[in-house]
Amino acid sequence: MRLLGVESRRWSAALLIIGDEILSGRTQDKNISQVAVWLNEQGIRLAEVRVVPDEAGRIAEAVNALRATHDYLFTTGGIGPTHDDITVDAIAAAFDVPVIVHPEARKILEDYYRDRPGGLTEARLRMARTPQGAELLRNPYSGAPGVKMGNVYILAGVPDIAASMLEALTGKLEGGRSVVSVTVGARAAESDVADLLRETEEANPGVAIGSYPFFRDGRYGANFVIRSEDGELARLTGEILSQRLRDAGYEPVEGGI
Amino acid sequence: MRLLGVESRRWSAALLIIGDEILSGRTQDKNISQVAVWLNEQGIRLAEVRVVPDEAGRIAEAVNALRATHDYLFTTGGIGPTHDDITVDAIAAAFDVPVIVHPEARKILEDYYRDRPGGLTEARLRMARTPQGAELLRNPYSGAPGVKMGNVYILAGVPDIAASMLEALTGKLEGGRSVVSVTVGARAAESDVADLLRETEEANPGVAIGSYPFFRDGRYGANFVIRSEDGELARLTGEILSQRLRDAGYEPVEGGI
Repeated sequence: MRLLGVESRRWSAALLIIGDEILSGRTQDKNISQVAVWLNEQGIRLAEVRVVPDEAGRIAEAVNALRATHDYLFTTGGIGPTHDDITVDAIAAAFDVPVIVHPEARKILEDYYRDRPGGLTEARLRMARTPQGAELLRNPYSGAPGVKMGNVYILAGVPDIAASMLEALTGKLEGGRSVVSVTVGARAAESDVADLLRETEEANPGVAIGSYPFFRDGRYGANFVIRSEDGELARLTGEILSQRLRDAGYEPVEGGI
Repeated sequence: MRLLGVESRRWSAALLIIGDEILSGRTQDKNISQVAVWLNEQGIRLAEVRVVPDEAGRIAEAVNALRATHDYLFTTGGIGPTHDDITVDAIAAAFDVPVIVHPEARKILEDYYRDRPGGLTEARLRMARTPQGAELLRNPYSGAPGVKMGNVYILAGVPDIAASMLEALTGKLEGGRSVVSVTVGARAAESDVADLLRETEEANPGVAIGSYPFFRDGRYGANFVIRSEDGELARLTGEILSQRLRDAGYEPVEGGI
């Protein structure tokens, strides 16, 4: 008999990527996957991503839609010192508050630029601007802080800087259980094992099984990913699926191919 | 004096990525950038991206929001043979039409699987299902076609297959002018050249200049990307920006660093 604990609350987050450079195809996004993995470690599910251009109206509209429908909203991009960095202004507009120079952010930048060439210029001081009522997020990588406004976490777009801001936030957000993933790969065309997968999922309530085909080294194969908040159930279902694949004549590969 | 032609209509597209595997962080997305670059070549601007989970309601909601606000909507993912492939059903629901087995798609799959082990199984036949009233999109890579329903183009999620479907669509969509990008890089902290960038953008109406900082080999730098539908204007602005950077003591690098 499986004893289930009290059903834990599900926490969800959205990610809003503010980036002409992503929409033009110039830059390959690296933030979705790192934010997704980090959120799962915090027990929060990444439930939606949007990418919008560097346009204040589009940013504000997406911020208001997403912060209302998820526990958390993370944004990346547009908080640097140049004219195209308009995220803070757009989010202040979304909250209908003015933009201020945050005293603590100003202090951080004064310290950071004290011994650097040029010092704290007008352009650099832009990075101390926040919506009124905001708190700061630590940036161990490069000084200029991120911003927390309500349930909106405003991160840098440069992936290394975004990562350092997330690292500084680790363990500080309220969340539930992480999702455990178990991957089983096989040199099987997914269409040949479609029934087997569906039956395995149906026989194990509480897991979701995804099938991700590939063509590599001239041969077809697929990775089957079993996800569950119940880690034991995910592992058990992985073993059941491996056995069923073996019985059907396919050599399973734990951990995927 | 600059002679401007008749203002061309702007064509916009949205991309909807259907993918638990992207939202879990397991898979690094590769479709945004390839769809973006291809669309620009067709004279269509990628104006928004959303990533939603493999849930019919969420897919249908996003499809209806995005197909109404853009000239084109492209979707990737969820059109394979397994139980987690629910894109066709969700899009049929969004259009409020039934799902049918498309006769032409069935024929394509019969031909494709005739000499392959197992033949056209029930699972594989799932890939011939379309919303009623849909047309097919050629898949030169692996047989199973994509689907066009109204202004919605339903592509595979596997990047190589999506690419082959786009390739087969090249030149077939109505579009306007492409955006030309000119990149100028410099070993300059972007905060040091923020004024110079803003002034250059303001002095050249019709261009947008983006600034993308990096930290590499222990030194700061940034790439400045000038975008315009007027290629000559973009190139000219690139030269002006290069000269201004040089005058300010920074060595510009055409094409970026």
